[in-house]
Amino acid sequence: MPDYTIDYELSDDDENIHNKWDNRLEPRVTVQPGEVVRFECRDALDRQLTRESTVEDMVNASFDPVHPLTGPVAVEGAEPGDVLAVEFLDFEHKGWGYTGYMPGEMELGLLHEDFDGAGLYIWDLDDEVAHFAHGIDVPLDMFPGIAGVAPAADGAHNTLPPRDTGGNFDIKHLTKGSTLYLPIEVEGALFSTADCHAAQGDGEVCVTGIEAPMFVTARFDVLKDKSIEQPEFETNGPFTPTGRDEPMYGTTGIADDLMEATKKAVRHMITHLETEHGLTRGEAYILCSAAVDLKINEVVDAPNWTVSAYLPKSIFP
Amino acid sequence: MPDYTIDYELSDDDENIHNKWDNRLEPRVTVQPGEVVRFECRDALDRQLTRESTVEDMVNASFDPVHPLTGPVAVEGAEPGDVLAVEFLDFEHKGWGYTGYMPGEMELGLLHEDFDGAGLYIWDLDDEVAHFAHGIDVPLDMFPGIAGVAPAADGAHNTLPPRDTGGNFDIKHLTKGSTLYLPIEVEGALFSTADCHAAQGDGEVCVTGIEAPMFVTARFDVLKDKSIEQPEFETNGPFTPTGRDEPMYGTTGIADDLMEATKKAVRHMITHLETEHGLTRGEAYILCSAAVDLKINEVVDAPNWTVSAYLPKSIFP
Repeated sequence: MPDYTIDYELSDDDENIHNKWDNRLEPRVTVQPGEVVRFECRDALDRQLTRESTVEDMVNASFDPVHPLTGPVAVEGAEPGDVLAVEFLDFEHKGWGYTGYMPGEMELGLLHEDFDGAGLYIWDLDDEVAHFAHGIDVPLDMFPGIAGVAPAADGAHNTLPPRDTGGNFDIKHLTKGSTLYLPIEVEGALFSTADCHAAQGDGEVCVTGIEAPMFVTARFDVLKDKSIEQPEFETNGPFTPTGRDEPMYGTTGIADDLMEATKKAVRHMITHLETEHGLTRGEAYILCSAAVDLKINEVVDAPNWTVSAYLPKSIFP
Repeated sequence: MPDYTIDYELSDDDENIHNKWDNRLEPRVTVQPGEVVRFECRDALDRQLTRESTVEDMVNASFDPVHPLTGPVAVEGAEPGDVLAVEFLDFEHKGWGYTGYMPGEMELGLLHEDFDGAGLYIWDLDDEVAHFAHGIDVPLDMFPGIAGVAPAADGAHNTLPPRDTGGNFDIKHLTKGSTLYLPIEVEGALFSTADCHAAQGDGEVCVTGIEAPMFVTARFDVLKDKSIEQPEFETNGPFTPTGRDEPMYGTTGIADDLMEATKKAVRHMITHLETEHGLTRGEAYILCSAAVDLKINEVVDAPNWTVSAYLPKSIFP
């Protein structure tokens, strides 16, 4: 039994959904510090895809509603300069998710210049893993790709880039039990969440994690004696798919630009997945986005920086 | 008892030390595939510092001998286009190490613009941890900061930047039991190693890990049926200081340039260590370089990328 009670529920009905950061929005609910809200979150493409969708359905989807955010929630007593603490208590998926990459001409994704066409994989999710092709199982590590508060700047702001106030930062370690700290810029904080992922590799390289409609349960608190410039967090991981050390295969990217080093590391991993595991390059790109982590090995050995991509061997049958 | 025998020993005497990558160097020893070599490696500053050194000694040290590489070792049958497999069997430190950052005007280190002066910490190393100030203990994760083979390009090449053939890539996960794969560019491969670290955070942000003279024991093999462009590797970690999931504090850097995002994440972590743990900013910079990891959260949510720095809580008393 959970050691909390849900004080408020926000369904994914239209009245609880908005798709811009905007401090003029009326809060859907105002909570006291310590109270718990359960958010129902749509998938990133706002229900335009189903379990039966094809890659054509994805390519033809409208990007106008991206991202549907559930909220906002106001927190009593939250003032600019305070910090909002959001403790993630639980996540519940709805049995499926998808990972896709878009045609290169859309210039989305780390390697959009390498992939002319689009690709889509629809995942079945059970209680522990997401099932991929070739018998590969990716352990579930559910988290919200988007969690943020309203910026002080006037107007309606696009949800794609993350900001000082959080948003679309895709931090895969914001799993159950984590606490996210967000700098509050407006009265009440105005928190919203969205874009849940059943799992994701660091980098989210093909532009999607395992995108999945999901419930997010979170407890709110306001910290008056803490001051931060950008989001911070506490987490217990997992830092590997199994939560313990296990064999990983690493590919390095070495280049005089950190983004180029990142691209090289992922390209080499795609080649490794193709030659050693028999995946198509499209499957490999999707698997990298769902299950391969990116670490910065060094940023000081001028003029070349090193980034590596890490593939957990335990996901293979 | 180890399941291998040492076939060759290379001491750190002058005849086994070189400080450029150069395919004209005569191998100090030629080994058969499957044979094991134990290398004695000097510290990165080539024995100019001792356990009693001051920060002035470090600032006044000559950079001319950096890095003293032990080798080269030729491997029988290794030809250009093959892959050299280097299995790291053991590391043995000599009881001490150091981490330092240089005056900002030298433009070394991720945050050289933030630090005018220099700083140095001399660590005592025991069998399991490196002892820092404030009762902080950093678990030992020994690895070679430099491991590489001679490039095909003519001439004597600086050891500071890592290359396609490896070198100074500072991959902290090349711990005992790991296997490194290097693309061979010249006959015999001509492998050398150096710049051992008793521990390091991903990024090596202040420009030094825990620099320590060390013995490196490695087994060599030549793979004819594998082809790689840049180094690859297999490792069991550890991916956290304790080898299991444990609480971490994370700070994010969100910016429209990946290097700037990395700088922000580390700056925020230095502020966190200062305000929450009472470290000076210099101590915090050194601790980040020795024990804080950098992960790329997302590189696709244009125009802003997210990098986070991860501090393991278990290092505190």
